[in-house]
Amino acid sequence: MVLWWTWGLWRAALAQPGAGSLSAGIRGASGASGPYAAAGELRGEPDRYGGISVRLGALERLDAAVFQRRLEAAIQQWRSEGRVAVWLHIPILQSQCIAPAASLGFCFHHAESYSSTLALWLGEGPSRLPGYATHQVGVAGAVFDESTRKILVVQDRNKLKNMWKFPGGLSEPGEDIGDTAVREVFEETGIKSEFRSLLSIRQQHTNPGAFGKSDMYIICRLKPCSFTINFCQHECLRCEWMDLNDLVKTENTTPITSRVASLLLYGYREGFDKIDLTMEELPAVYTGLFYKLYHKELPENYKIMTGMD
Amino acid sequence: MVLWWTWGLWRAALAQPGAGSLSAGIRGASGASGPYAAAGELRGEPDRYGGISVRLGALERLDAAVFQRRLEAAIQQWRSEGRVAVWLHIPILQSQCIAPAASLGFCFHHAESYSSTLALWLGEGPSRLPGYATHQVGVAGAVFDESTRKILVVQDRNKLKNMWKFPGGLSEPGEDIGDTAVREVFEETGIKSEFRSLLSIRQQHTNPGAFGKSDMYIICRLKPCSFTINFCQHECLRCEWMDLNDLVKTENTTPITSRVASLLLYGYREGFDKIDLTMEELPAVYTGLFYKLYHKELPENYKIMTGMD
Repeated sequence: MVLWWTWGLWRAALAQPGAGSLSAGIRGASGASGPYAAAGELRGEPDRYGGISVRLGALERLDAAVFQRRLEAAIQQWRSEGRVAVWLHIPILQSQCIAPAASLGFCFHHAESYSSTLALWLGEGPSRLPGYATHQVGVAGAVFDESTRKILVVQDRNKLKNMWKFPGGLSEPGEDIGDTAVREVFEETGIKSEFRSLLSIRQQHTNPGAFGKSDMYIICRLKPCSFTINFCQHECLRCEWMDLNDLVKTENTTPITSRVASLLLYGYREGFDKIDLTMEELPAVYTGLFYKLYHKELPENYKIMTGMD
Repeated sequence: MVLWWTWGLWRAALAQPGAGSLSAGIRGASGASGPYAAAGELRGEPDRYGGISVRLGALERLDAAVFQRRLEAAIQQWRSEGRVAVWLHIPILQSQCIAPAASLGFCFHHAESYSSTLALWLGEGPSRLPGYATHQVGVAGAVFDESTRKILVVQDRNKLKNMWKFPGGLSEPGEDIGDTAVREVFEETGIKSEFRSLLSIRQQHTNPGAFGKSDMYIICRLKPCSFTINFCQHECLRCEWMDLNDLVKTENTTPITSRVASLLLYGYREGFDKIDLTMEELPAVYTGLFYKLYHKELPENYKIMTGMD
């Protein structure tokens, strides 16, 4: 499906009359509106995709019925202008405006902390509005000490009793994959480590632990910088430096841990370049920011060919 | 940070008095509550992490002030029972209950379609409640025809004019990575293809196109099953089968496309096993479901070692 936002379809609506104005909303549409007049002004800001955004103020309480009348009038106006969508940004203390908006066809797009965002599709056919985040990201660290062939493993106190696994946990908002692995390993085991590579990616859907959303679970190879275990008693039942061969052979482990253990043994014997996805920072085209890209290491002579790098 | 839900810390609270009951909520706490009595009963269902969940009914409209009094009394009760968290699930047409909950300390955890979920942490220290989904996932398909050394590329109609890139788009909820690649390639170019491998993963944060959330962008290697281009005029300005060498050399492309083109050239010359992350289905330990795991191909003799596979 074509999504208008990130993967962008610049709507023809942009070329329509009135689309350029910065205050496309309405004022005083409901006539006499009593004590809610000032806060009740519905002002919309057009976006470049032919939609309109309305941000409700947080300070003055809006009356639900007045809001509904104004919103209804505004929607008529925006529809006549050829707008394809309306976004409503509602501070949590103005949530009495949500049900009135819902009765006019809006539904939740997302909500977080102290604000919710509702959307209404006015364009033709099914909504082409982009969805919200669909995945949580969990990261585990396989801390492997080449000099002793030992790997750091834990047993969960709760969920996976007696199953050896790698320490790990959910990424915090805005956190890089490698940083999550290093942080979680330290919090669970007390071991300091450095990111080396990304080893595997797992995708799982309709996860109850992810509130029905999808889950991406990534295992990284880390190099230990300290060796004295001081594990978190709340989370772990046991924590050990285990010989990699033993982890490969044990049945007391999850399929994914077992698989990654075999992968590590292969890398240990034949070279980690056989299994590693290495990380590099590359520039984003428009923003000037950098992002992290992971792929199989490319020989130097192949990198030189590359146009813009 | 320890998250109680997915990465589970089984709360000590579970062992406390009253924690096992299935109707830990209160009834009639506000005394005479007029016409809202029936719908106003606040009933909570304990979870195994020491929290309590309240689901408001959708049918009978709750009065905001009555709801607030009952919620306040219930929180006192749950706090005295040692509950560590309260979850409130609110149908969109009962959103008049949101602001009262917020005034008691609740904030949005998430919202989607016709329902919102608010949470209140009652435990010690900062909240250990797990966050909601943090990433959107975009997938592009590098459709490469080994027999002709041609690669399928497009130019965006809007965002990245004159920059050759691989066709792609956002994953739909519950969609596997490879399926997104195949679907998006077909929708944008009319080319049918088959998933071969995962080539690269990019992570970017605070993305405006992702409503401030993070973005995971994955490029897959696909094998073409058809060759006649019929591209989407809304999305693409141009679409071509280009010689891979030309894509490697051109400056009219994004850094990531250029990098993956070099990677493909390396794979084409030295064997795709040098660059591919192949996909395999493995069983999830408890649910009996299968998930998809991607990593460097493991030689057969290493797979045999694996305990539970």
